[in-house]
Amino acid sequence: MQYQIEKRDPKSSARSGKIFTDHGEIPTPIFMPVGTVGTVKGIHVKDLEEEVNAPIILGNTYHLYLRPGLEVLKEAGGLHQFMGWNRSILTDSGGFQVFSLSERRKLTEKGAEFRSHLDGSKHLFTPESVVDIQRTIGADIMMAFDECPSGDAPYSYAVQSMELTHRWLKRGIEQFKKSNPLYGYEQTFFPIVQGAGYAELRKRSAEYVASFDMDGNAIGGLAVGEPEEVMYQMIEVVNAILPQDKPRYLMGVGTPVNILEAISLGVDMFDCVMPTRNGRNGMIFTSQGIINIKNEKWKTDFSPIDEQGHCFFDLHYSKAYLRHLFVAREMLGPQIASIHNLSFYLWLVSEARRQIESGCFSTWKDQMVKQLARRL
Amino acid sequence: MQYQIEKRDPKSSARSGKIFTDHGEIPTPIFMPVGTVGTVKGIHVKDLEEEVNAPIILGNTYHLYLRPGLEVLKEAGGLHQFMGWNRSILTDSGGFQVFSLSERRKLTEKGAEFRSHLDGSKHLFTPESVVDIQRTIGADIMMAFDECPSGDAPYSYAVQSMELTHRWLKRGIEQFKKSNPLYGYEQTFFPIVQGAGYAELRKRSAEYVASFDMDGNAIGGLAVGEPEEVMYQMIEVVNAILPQDKPRYLMGVGTPVNILEAISLGVDMFDCVMPTRNGRNGMIFTSQGIINIKNEKWKTDFSPIDEQGHCFFDLHYSKAYLRHLFVAREMLGPQIASIHNLSFYLWLVSEARRQIESGCFSTWKDQMVKQLARRL
Ligand SMILES: [Zn+2]
Ligand SMILES: [Zn+2]
Repeated sequence: MQYQIEKRDPKSSARSGKIFTDHGEIPTPIFMPVGTVGTVKGIHVKDLEEEVNAPIILGNTYHLYLRPGLEVLKEAGGLHQFMGWNRSILTDSGGFQVFSLSERRKLTEKGAEFRSHLDGSKHLFTPESVVDIQRTIGADIMMAFDECPSGDAPYSYAVQSMELTHRWLKRGIEQFKKSNPLYGYEQTFFPIVQGAGYAELRKRSAEYVASFDMDGNAIGGLAVGEPEEVMYQMIEVVNAILPQDKPRYLMGVGTPVNILEAISLGVDMFDCVMPTRNGRNGMIFTSQGIINIKNEKWKTDFSPIDEQGHCFFDLHYSKAYLRHLFVAREMLGPQIASIHNLSFYLWLVSEARRQIESGCFSTWKDQMVKQLARRL
Repeated sequence: MQYQIEKRDPKSSARSGKIFTDHGEIPTPIFMPVGTVGTVKGIHVKDLEEEVNAPIILGNTYHLYLRPGLEVLKEAGGLHQFMGWNRSILTDSGGFQVFSLSERRKLTEKGAEFRSHLDGSKHLFTPESVVDIQRTIGADIMMAFDECPSGDAPYSYAVQSMELTHRWLKRGIEQFKKSNPLYGYEQTFFPIVQGAGYAELRKRSAEYVASFDMDGNAIGGLAVGEPEEVMYQMIEVVNAILPQDKPRYLMGVGTPVNILEAISLGVDMFDCVMPTRNGRNGMIFTSQGIINIKNEKWKTDFSPIDEQGHCFFDLHYSKAYLRHLFVAREMLGPQIASIHNLSFYLWLVSEARRQIESGCFSTWKDQMVKQLARRL
């Protein structure tokens, strides 16, 4: 993987750049749609490419390991082949799902023992096995196995958890270095900074992570219940330490406003289920603010879903029609909302990129932050 | 509406032709995807146009009347505008849904009183009001209000029901003649032959229907539980009487085999929920036979969904991937299956058309009928 910075915003830590993987070029800042189980819910890969314009998507190691399973993925020649997606893929390590979804999990120095949320079967994830699994999935960017404490974790627990994550990181990197890609293209491996809401721990974690000098670095364990101000503060602390010349990935974040604020703090990569999950519930993000499309007020509003939208669907369908689909519980409603929201998120980061390139990012961001959170 | 016959098959009653509405040209024989509530479930209009290649779809008067309702449809400028579909639309009269879905329906000479299956509210459909409703929906082809008895209706009930349908037809045609389109394009009106499984009644009904000399004629009340042989026999009786030079529409039918047999009996138009409804349950129709995609046997079959398929999705996704989506209950599974099945149905009727044009329809049909019903 290669990364190059193109421009830096004079008034903030925002920067634009490009990541290169064997599956193509990724302009940054970038948002990665979440394709949990080998599909971005409700969206054809063709539309992900042509309408959403996503250069990279995220897959979930935990889900893919359970279904379709490694046997199928290996025989398919990896996830790209399996799902018909020829652009880049990043996989998370499964840590987050093991701790949030699975039953009777048991954490030891060795790794995490858990039972599948599907059939109760018993499994063990270790820092090493999670590298091997991601080799089989064939992600362009693989993630380290970490433990992610909740937003209100007490200091003593946060320290312990971070130290375990660090020991796991060392083992994961060793496994990464002594293993090889299976499908003829390069794979890289990002470590993850933890440390909950404690600046002191975030600092220590960022220093430890930076010491490995990997191709890119991630910030995990944020947007898990802590106040937004704490989140921004932690990002600032961490980004002051993480290498400038490597992309920084803020995991699982967030609202359009969160994304712009984090870009201004020097973050380059994002993923979040919000555009798809909230979309499936009728929440539409636009550059003018947020629409609850189920609301009676859109009943006879025949204007396009998003007049300033950039995908085919924004202009082709009206608000009244989309509302009707949600009221009638037609599956096309969630499909349209998901594709619109993702297309909006991808537009937002590409517009942020253009503003950075033209030197106007900070002014633009301040104005957008006011608009984006409005309720229409 | 215009209709012209192009070729007749020398060995059967099959014919090819073209229907012209103000929303375009419809090659016949044709299959119309069912768009119950203003959407063909799970399919973007863009894909209906480009991948399924449907020149006409069907809407349900009963469903559209309840949701989004006439007020919204009128303000939208009709269903075409509302759903963003610029090709032709046929609406059924709502009779079938009133009798199968609604609660506490009461049949009188005047019409059918019913309570909405959604909120229990009380409504009255009459032969006249159903014309007015379809004027508001703006269908290119409107259907008469009829009563559709079940496949095993006793003779005495079938007679009574047919006679009521005939009296309703007369009133419907009067209302059609004295009313006008609302949106500046032409609308036409098809009467419906009833008579259950009784050749004598079918004959009387076809004669009555033919006497009005409308632009096209429909055969209703088949594929409602009677043996297939009875269905084919009724079609033969009816088509011997319905005018040669008008398109014949067999309502709610059916399997790929049913469609080919009915084409050979002189039917030109079809609709059915089977490709979409069964598709949502994992049944895939192909020219080689029927696939239950949930079956374990497809787990590592990475060949395309349908090697001989004609839409983008058939070749882009594998059987193993589609199976995975169904097993993981991902909405993309039903989406792909629906679009594939519709694209297959549209291919089937267009191939039938080509075979009629080249004079080989009957031989081709006999061979296809053997293939299509196979379980793969
Ligand atoms: Zn999120
Ligand atoms: Zn049917």
